[in-house]
Amino acid sequence: MPATHIARRDRLREILRERGLDAALVTNLVNVRYLTGFTGTNAALLVYADGPGADPGVFGTDGRYDAQSAEQVPELPRVLQRATDQAMAARAAADGHHTVGYESHHVTVDGLAELRAAAEQLRLATLNQAVEQLRLTKDNAEIELLRRACAIADQALAGLIEAGGLRPGRTERQVGRDLDGRMLDLGAHAVSFETIVATGPSSAIPHHRPDDRELAAGDLVKLDFGAQYGGYHSDMTRTMVLGEPAGWQREIYELVAAAQRAGSAAVAVGADVREVDRAAREVIERAGYGERFSHGLGHGVGLEIHEAPALSPLGAGTLAEATPLTVEPGVYLPGRGGVRIEDTLVVRADGPELLTLTTKDLVSL
Amino acid sequence: MPATHIARRDRLREILRERGLDAALVTNLVNVRYLTGFTGTNAALLVYADGPGADPGVFGTDGRYDAQSAEQVPELPRVLQRATDQAMAARAAADGHHTVGYESHHVTVDGLAELRAAAEQLRLATLNQAVEQLRLTKDNAEIELLRRACAIADQALAGLIEAGGLRPGRTERQVGRDLDGRMLDLGAHAVSFETIVATGPSSAIPHHRPDDRELAAGDLVKLDFGAQYGGYHSDMTRTMVLGEPAGWQREIYELVAAAQRAGSAAVAVGADVREVDRAAREVIERAGYGERFSHGLGHGVGLEIHEAPALSPLGAGTLAEATPLTVEPGVYLPGRGGVRIEDTLVVRADGPELLTLTTKDLVSL
Repeated sequence: MPATHIARRDRLREILRERGLDAALVTNLVNVRYLTGFTGTNAALLVYADGPGADPGVFGTDGRYDAQSAEQVPELPRVLQRATDQAMAARAAADGHHTVGYESHHVTVDGLAELRAAAEQLRLATLNQAVEQLRLTKDNAEIELLRRACAIADQALAGLIEAGGLRPGRTERQVGRDLDGRMLDLGAHAVSFETIVATGPSSAIPHHRPDDRELAAGDLVKLDFGAQYGGYHSDMTRTMVLGEPAGWQREIYELVAAAQRAGSAAVAVGADVREVDRAAREVIERAGYGERFSHGLGHGVGLEIHEAPALSPLGAGTLAEATPLTVEPGVYLPGRGGVRIEDTLVVRADGPELLTLTTKDLVSL
Repeated sequence: MPATHIARRDRLREILRERGLDAALVTNLVNVRYLTGFTGTNAALLVYADGPGADPGVFGTDGRYDAQSAEQVPELPRVLQRATDQAMAARAAADGHHTVGYESHHVTVDGLAELRAAAEQLRLATLNQAVEQLRLTKDNAEIELLRRACAIADQALAGLIEAGGLRPGRTERQVGRDLDGRMLDLGAHAVSFETIVATGPSSAIPHHRPDDRELAAGDLVKLDFGAQYGGYHSDMTRTMVLGEPAGWQREIYELVAAAQRAGSAAVAVGADVREVDRAAREVIERAGYGERFSHGLGHGVGLEIHEAPALSPLGAGTLAEATPLTVEPGVYLPGRGGVRIEDTLVVRADGPELLTLTTKDLVSL
């Protein structure tokens, strides 16, 4: 979709002009993908505020991606150099640009020294996450990709449960591979991250890696997983019980579910991210489990599994229309078990749009 | 293995004393894992040159990893803070340290500003990749993990071929998933990277992502893949032919195989990395295909799939005993097909030790 990418570069150009920058040197690969569609593992992009042509700029990668970049980014002149970032800085200087915005949140201290050495005459100033700001609000095509990614995850989990894939005697690792395989069968291009299958006492570990523990009757079974589709990441957590839930399991489940509803209800255009976190956290704190909810409430999702905004006591800013994000409170009781419930949803003027549709009622298997 | 990790921290302490640094603030996660064994996704480590106790230092992560870090790094005091790096800088200052080495090749420009804001009294100086230098030479336990990772990849490929998994009509994606599944079945903890299955004309793309192209008689079939075992990455490429090889296929295959032999033969203790690259590249250049070998000859492997040293015309330095690396020349003919042959091997005083044992004879399927 070159038209989409050119439009995105045009929006970046507007920011450059507002800030008095001659050019942007984009080196964060995800941002390069957003602005060009290129999917390889090494690239950089120069967007010029002004210049000859309607879309002045240069695409850079290395020889491994000669054919791929010619196909994916046919509309831009290309630089093929292994030391891509430096070559692009030199190119910006050679093209007569002076004040160039670079990604100071992504470029390392050594990397900046290399850019300076490659183009001493450039004045390098921070881009201040300008591309991430553009990425916050998704267009319809992006949300459609997310919707499909979420639908794949929903269907994969439904298939896993239907096939009896969550049963005593199976290991966490087997369950994880089964779920991953189902997402790929359903058209996922990859999984969003290493699937979390955390069962029994291990469910009390928020980010547990699946191991050889066998599922057993009475276990909490926490699954945190997602599908990538067209570069976009879904993210969902569901926690179930193998057999009849014990009283304490039901208690923390209902508590987390209530917190999840409160957090989702607080998602609105203009809402302060800390207030959204607070809405859910308050529910858990009032029940006396505040210290057992040891992470933020959620995060933006898109081309990255974790992107802005952060819904957290440490976050900053307000929510904008068409921003997809997760709401995922949890309560973790060390040595016993934990519950997390997570949806991916989209900020909308008339209330959040839910993308992960699997039931949040307590399911006993 | 706390003893191993404490010994590694002791070696880092020696470097700190040599360089007049009071402490190291290690924020590259892979380096933190190397020095502590911690496998979570957020962590930082302070190693103090001197201080009370035999192993002065502090481990930092956030609340999600409370239980996991207590289990994996029981021997160090811990800081649990979401803004981990900054909290650790503040801790180093509070513990009375002044000159602290930080990872300038890993810390971003914005990250350095945050460290400075968190601990204004610290003098931050580059660690100059000190931990990566330690990681260059592997100990026997590390090489044993690599050996197992390579054996898993060998066995997975043998199983795939035996089962007729490389046959006309299967898609690249199916082949990739089959191979990945076999590695996981054989005990791989994960794959080393997204498996490359590049067939027919797509084999001319060095880093092709598997797609829905169906294998067809006469295709070159290039597989570049690896297994992770205990955190260590194997890396191997083999190229085969579906059916009887055409003359041009046989020609470039034998050329790449000869280059691969020449490159491997040049791997020796003390060898200049550019000379090793040259040894293989020369073979390909003499045959007139120099421009069709568009990448470096190889790279170190270990806790990362790509680590130092780089065997490349742009590399620097000489090879040290017990350094595992890849040798992977290739020739790529756009629109027709390409061949790459890659081994993982270890620099040894008496000649390189081969870890990937699959035949490099031309296999027709």
